[in-house]
Amino acid sequence: MTAANRIVGATVWTGEHTLHDAEIVWSVETGTIEYVGPSRGPAGDGDIDGTGRLVLPGFVNGHTHAGMGVLRGYSDDVHLHTWLGHVRAIELRMTADDILAGLRLAMAEMLRSGTVGFVDMFEWTTPLLGAVVDAGLRVNAAPTVFAYDAVAFPSAATATGAQVLDATPGLAAEFAGEQRITVTYGLHAPYTCPPEMLSDVAARRADNGIGIQIHLSETRREVAESLEQWGVSPIRHVADLGLLPGRLHVAHAVHPEPGDLGLLAGPGVTVSHNPVSNLKLGAGIAPVPEYLAGDVALGLGTDSVASNNTLDMYEELKTAILLPRGVANDPQVITGRSVLKMATAGSAKALDQGLSGVLAIGEQADLQVLDVSGTTAAPFTDAVSFACYAARGSDVTDVVIAGRVVVSGGRCLTIDEDAVRAEVTERATRLRGELADGDPRPVRS
Amino acid sequence: MTAANRIVGATVWTGEHTLHDAEIVWSVETGTIEYVGPSRGPAGDGDIDGTGRLVLPGFVNGHTHAGMGVLRGYSDDVHLHTWLGHVRAIELRMTADDILAGLRLAMAEMLRSGTVGFVDMFEWTTPLLGAVVDAGLRVNAAPTVFAYDAVAFPSAATATGAQVLDATPGLAAEFAGEQRITVTYGLHAPYTCPPEMLSDVAARRADNGIGIQIHLSETRREVAESLEQWGVSPIRHVADLGLLPGRLHVAHAVHPEPGDLGLLAGPGVTVSHNPVSNLKLGAGIAPVPEYLAGDVALGLGTDSVASNNTLDMYEELKTAILLPRGVANDPQVITGRSVLKMATAGSAKALDQGLSGVLAIGEQADLQVLDVSGTTAAPFTDAVSFACYAARGSDVTDVVIAGRVVVSGGRCLTIDEDAVRAEVTERATRLRGELADGDPRPVRS
Ligand SMILES: [Zn+2]
Ligand SMILES: [Zn+2]
Repeated sequence: MTAANRIVGATVWTGEHTLHDAEIVWSVETGTIEYVGPSRGPAGDGDIDGTGRLVLPGFVNGHTHAGMGVLRGYSDDVHLHTWLGHVRAIELRMTADDILAGLRLAMAEMLRSGTVGFVDMFEWTTPLLGAVVDAGLRVNAAPTVFAYDAVAFPSAATATGAQVLDATPGLAAEFAGEQRITVTYGLHAPYTCPPEMLSDVAARRADNGIGIQIHLSETRREVAESLEQWGVSPIRHVADLGLLPGRLHVAHAVHPEPGDLGLLAGPGVTVSHNPVSNLKLGAGIAPVPEYLAGDVALGLGTDSVASNNTLDMYEELKTAILLPRGVANDPQVITGRSVLKMATAGSAKALDQGLSGVLAIGEQADLQVLDVSGTTAAPFTDAVSFACYAARGSDVTDVVIAGRVVVSGGRCLTIDEDAVRAEVTERATRLRGELADGDPRPVRS
Repeated sequence: MTAANRIVGATVWTGEHTLHDAEIVWSVETGTIEYVGPSRGPAGDGDIDGTGRLVLPGFVNGHTHAGMGVLRGYSDDVHLHTWLGHVRAIELRMTADDILAGLRLAMAEMLRSGTVGFVDMFEWTTPLLGAVVDAGLRVNAAPTVFAYDAVAFPSAATATGAQVLDATPGLAAEFAGEQRITVTYGLHAPYTCPPEMLSDVAARRADNGIGIQIHLSETRREVAESLEQWGVSPIRHVADLGLLPGRLHVAHAVHPEPGDLGLLAGPGVTVSHNPVSNLKLGAGIAPVPEYLAGDVALGLGTDSVASNNTLDMYEELKTAILLPRGVANDPQVITGRSVLKMATAGSAKALDQGLSGVLAIGEQADLQVLDVSGTTAAPFTDAVSFACYAARGSDVTDVVIAGRVVVSGGRCLTIDEDAVRAEVTERATRLRGELADGDPRPVRS
């Protein structure tokens, strides 16, 4: 482990303003920032030389399913509700080791592209959370259920929704000492989880203080079916059952009905906007300017590599800035800066770990360093403009999380990428082969 | 100059189908492909080893203004018609060397991200076209005019529209021996070029066979003003003046009126879709699925770095695939493959150089090689899926144009990138300084 604790001579966007020829110092012990300001001397041995470098707060991926790493590019051109069937069929063949390998691949990709934490709904167990601790990332992990008696965890066909809900507080307690690990309840969606389960989990949250994650109002079809079945929107439906307000992290919210925005803006609620996945699956375009104007606590996420197919937050950032402008025929309906804050401070709020997304004395030392000396950054005139419109995940050279250097010189220090890639490739081949033998869905050529 | 003429052991998407463990051989002399098929032996000295590599036809950037390279990130968050004013103010301070430096930066960025040719409207002169020849790229270059008596070329305040139109055939003749250089007339737009100029250039085309480029129907405002002033849409307006049908390359066509689609589908007409720029400037979202269904010859372009702010065709490709899906709430409204063909064969048609965008015996050897051995490509299971949804410009390692290797191992062989970057940075600083002194628009911090 590299023990660097200082960057000198860099351009820094603190989350609030831009500093030139700046220095940042943090404590490896406490993981917090001790100095941000003008450079006070040249880079010494072990320091990160900031010449030709831009420092930004690290990204937090507001919604993903990292354990699906082996499924990159699986089922590309279909509707969400068809896609869910395809993905579920292959997921149920995944072993615990398939999921662990996919998680490691996803974490390597996130780290290499400037992401310091992620908010995730999938199978989550002691070994999987242990892998996150080892990688040095932050996570809000929700072991996710469908119905009391349905299989919740792909790799353990006996783990029903009821068993997983009962086990979640124990998992949270097990990692209570890890400040970078948050465990929450995971409810897949109101169209899979029955009403009694939704109100049951709201009651458990009231009892033990453990937060909840859920997918809500992702497609028009979901909203239409909810109106037909329950007479109210999915968001109102879960509010009526006690999930809103309160500590609830909502993925998507693409199609709010009248009144839903006020519910999403309630205390404790955070929302992740995932525009690439919403476009790719034909879900639609969330009304982000309205949410920002309505004080919804909005973050930004990539969703999984089976519906994106990358975890590059730079791509998500640019898409999120551009999309509302085209819809409104108005480039001033949203600024790059406001979406950059969604990707940093916004998503960080959903981690619930006190990460502010701002580089200032006393704050967590969670940051990313980008190479801005290359052709695609020239001329480098404005840090926010570069980050929003021209940067790519591949520009990231170094990443620090809670004071620990986890990516250095473009290399991930905490994950053996070569080994993980080889393992993922082998596992993906096996899974697709099994499906080709036993499933009506053909393997893609 | 590297004289490699063979790639062995690669995955190849030919533009029509995918080959595994494939070999491609071309003639350096003729610039055409001599073999595409199964690998016939190991890579020898000087061959490109295709292990862990994907070969695709090279991209053609269907619409850009490469000479604006020094203006990356200039004027980010404003409407097109405001932006035009900002950009024009700084353009008129640009010297011939500012434009040459910007062009070289843009060409380096295009080459490094897999682009083999570009279709361009800006100042075009003998030295600028000479720089394209030296870089090894293909271009369809249109010296672009506004009005007979208005300044056409930023760097030469005496070059009026009339002078530039008169000089265009001479410039075309000068480069007639260069198969990778096409010169066309450039008409900025029907809201800047008066009707008599549009019909005059149509007559010149009929006389000398030189094609034309024009911006059409980019914003709702342009369409509304055309309807008010001429009683017809911009597309119908230029058709009435003789520009359509015939060899015309149209940029944007975001807002067609009834009847316009039929005109755009006419013989000789090509159209460049530029979704990132259209979103960023709030122009809107072009009806791409309708154009494809209506047999419009559609390509894909980035527009300039002042309205994008990159020239990465992978970003443009993914945006173009995703956007119609979100608008239609239907992921099957467009396939990744159809947009990949727009970025290759589609835009190539507008070059008018016989480039097919297909890798087959007898075709031009214009191709790009991507590294698919990295984390963001794993598991690598489908060439088209990877290209459409997960690839980035930074994955490109090698580029061949007309049989000449111009990028090798991620390094541009024909442009000194370090020197160009330094020069562009200095020139951008000077230009912004001049504006700060003499222009009401403040320099951005
Ligand atoms: Zn999800
Ligand atoms: Zn243009």
